[in-house]
Amino acid sequence: MPQEKNVMWLAKIIVTLKPVVNDPQGLAIKGGLHSLGFGGVQSVRAGKYIEIVLEAADKADAEGQVDAMCDKLLANPVIETYRFEVQKTE
Amino acid sequence: MPQEKNVMWLAKIIVTLKPVVNDPQGLAIKGGLHSLGFGGVQSVRAGKYIEIVLEAADKADAEGQVDAMCDKLLANPVIETYRFEVQKTE
Repeated sequence: MPQEKNVMWLAKIIVTLKPVVNDPQGLAIKGGLHSLGFGGVQSVRAGKYIEIVLEAADKADAEGQVDAMCDKLLANPVIETYRFEVQKTE
Repeated sequence: MPQEKNVMWLAKIIVTLKPVVNDPQGLAIKGGLHSLGFGGVQSVRAGKYIEIVLEAADKADAEGQVDAMCDKLLANPVIETYRFEVQKTE
């Protein structure tokens, strides 16, 4: 009898600071790029990228879990926003 | 007489650790997610996300600049890889 197995999902998550929030890391990168001669750089915003492999019954379940992870741990909802996509993986 | 102007480009850059490189930040996130009850999480890899607005004559110029920025400042080629996409912006 075939046994039902959960599928593995790969979530690619991008967490960014909200536009109104000051971004010292981005400013530092911008300064560094200018020093290196990249004078055409107008602005830099720094964020986080996280890849998670998780087990879930279906895509909706995986997306719900990742959404909860972002809310609870990965992003600070006061100053950050997040977006992600989920795809089947092995 | 219309004056030729450079166009603004938005580059979205993702910098990730190479697969063979140990990722303590990812492991810490994984531990945190398990503690929060997300037992289905198999692996976590942490990386950086950077958005740069730059001035360039055309898309090839913009891509060439961003590639050079990644090589020189944004990524450590010994342990990290990067990928990016460039699109026209205002």
